[in-house]
Amino acid sequence: MTHVFDEAIALQRGDDGVIHASTHPAYSNMVGPFGGITAATVLNVIATHPDVLGEPLALTLNYAAPIADGPWEIDVVPVRTNRSNQHWVVTLRQNDGTVGTGTAVFGLHRGTWGDTEATPPQAPPVAEVDSFDFPDFIAWSQNYDMKFIVGGIDAGKQDDSTTTLWIRDTPDRPLDYPALMSLTDTFFPRVFLRHGTMMPAGTISITTYFHATPDQLAAHGTAYVLGTAAANSFANGHYDQSGQIWSMPDDGEPVLLASTTQLVYFKDPQA
Amino acid sequence: MTHVFDEAIALQRGDDGVIHASTHPAYSNMVGPFGGITAATVLNVIATHPDVLGEPLALTLNYAAPIADGPWEIDVVPVRTNRSNQHWVVTLRQNDGTVGTGTAVFGLHRGTWGDTEATPPQAPPVAEVDSFDFPDFIAWSQNYDMKFIVGGIDAGKQDDSTTTLWIRDTPDRPLDYPALMSLTDTFFPRVFLRHGTMMPAGTISITTYFHATPDQLAAHGTAYVLGTAAANSFANGHYDQSGQIWSMPDDGEPVLLASTTQLVYFKDPQA
Repeated sequence: MTHVFDEAIALQRGDDGVIHASTHPAYSNMVGPFGGITAATVLNVIATHPDVLGEPLALTLNYAAPIADGPWEIDVVPVRTNRSNQHWVVTLRQNDGTVGTGTAVFGLHRGTWGDTEATPPQAPPVAEVDSFDFPDFIAWSQNYDMKFIVGGIDAGKQDDSTTTLWIRDTPDRPLDYPALMSLTDTFFPRVFLRHGTMMPAGTISITTYFHATPDQLAAHGTAYVLGTAAANSFANGHYDQSGQIWSMPDDGEPVLLASTTQLVYFKDPQA
Repeated sequence: MTHVFDEAIALQRGDDGVIHASTHPAYSNMVGPFGGITAATVLNVIATHPDVLGEPLALTLNYAAPIADGPWEIDVVPVRTNRSNQHWVVTLRQNDGTVGTGTAVFGLHRGTWGDTEATPPQAPPVAEVDSFDFPDFIAWSQNYDMKFIVGGIDAGKQDDSTTTLWIRDTPDRPLDYPALMSLTDTFFPRVFLRHGTMMPAGTISITTYFHATPDQLAAHGTAYVLGTAAANSFANGHYDQSGQIWSMPDDGEPVLLASTTQLVYFKDPQA
């Protein structure tokens, strides 16, 4: 049986070379599809491209306009291939209009010295945290099992925009790069936490850096990841968010799978 | 007298619509020009474009190949203009090859609720910190007055890759968006600090979010900014860096001018 995530990121390569995707009702959001599934679809296009070199290192995606329900198109061009990395330019179109822009860097992982300076947030074991029951009208959230540790969407008005949670796909699904990309966009808008209410807000631009190797993803499997995100500054209708996605094996060191940042638009409820 | 920074980011619009820039010897780096001046030049192209809407909100630039000394070309296209923001696609070319890709979001600042959650790093007053005398062969660094507080380039091998410093252009120059963009790329490679030595390393991709309004930049003027940056994870030939640039007025609240992140390639000295 195909997982709903795989249905949602599925592609059709047209005879004209154009790559066709389609919004999936299971991942719809308030306005247009959940951005994480759009970004995952883009990553999937590149990762399955015949000319791809290595694995994803960085993806920046700019949401230029909402994607309407239905088919949309993805254009990816490998504009430069070096010895160890490859640069891609991404354009998303619908009805002849540009709805998204982006760039990606793919590349080879080479064995080098390494060290993780960031530290994972404090978290009780997965089994000790309740899953949150999102309202049905946020369709995409039904495909994630979210166990909020700090800053849940029901936390009320907070002075600190940090959310920390255990999260995984539901039904569970082995972690891969598209799923990891999508996870980096699952943090609900930080501005909700600061005001204790939902309000108009949407990601304008997201950048995710992939630290995980394929072996680390395979070792992670279907476990929950530990995610954390916070805003740095809210001002003049925008804020930025910095986040991390960790693998927390029972019998080993934490692994920083991805770090992510995004710029978000919000509308002041008082204005 | 024209400031050397303005000489370096100067543009010529060709009759064919192509925008021509040229590397400036004062901003050369080990291999090709200092990335900050390249990014500042790109920002300058968009900011001075007749169709621009508002001010910079986000710039992602991917350094696909070193730019050789001499002329290079910039192509910027405003692919989508919304009511309050505008999406740009950026391509850098030299000798018919793509040497850089990128995207930018410009937009309007709207008065809204705001709050800065990030806090500036501890720093003694500017007058109490010595300026660092960089070796002449790092040409670009001669155009910045850097006063290292933590993690200077002469700090030796450290367990923590954090650098905090006071920095401004020298000769001094009123802060504007291109200068702020460049400042976000002035942190020397974090991997130097971890190994206590220079080693091959270079930015692959940088993303900077601009929080500052034109009024805040004007209020900042020619003062030093407080910069801080650290890596999150070094692994398999790459690391990521997160950084912030602050304005620290004597008589007011700190202002987070920009937050920045980058993905960096490094070569293991032991390999």
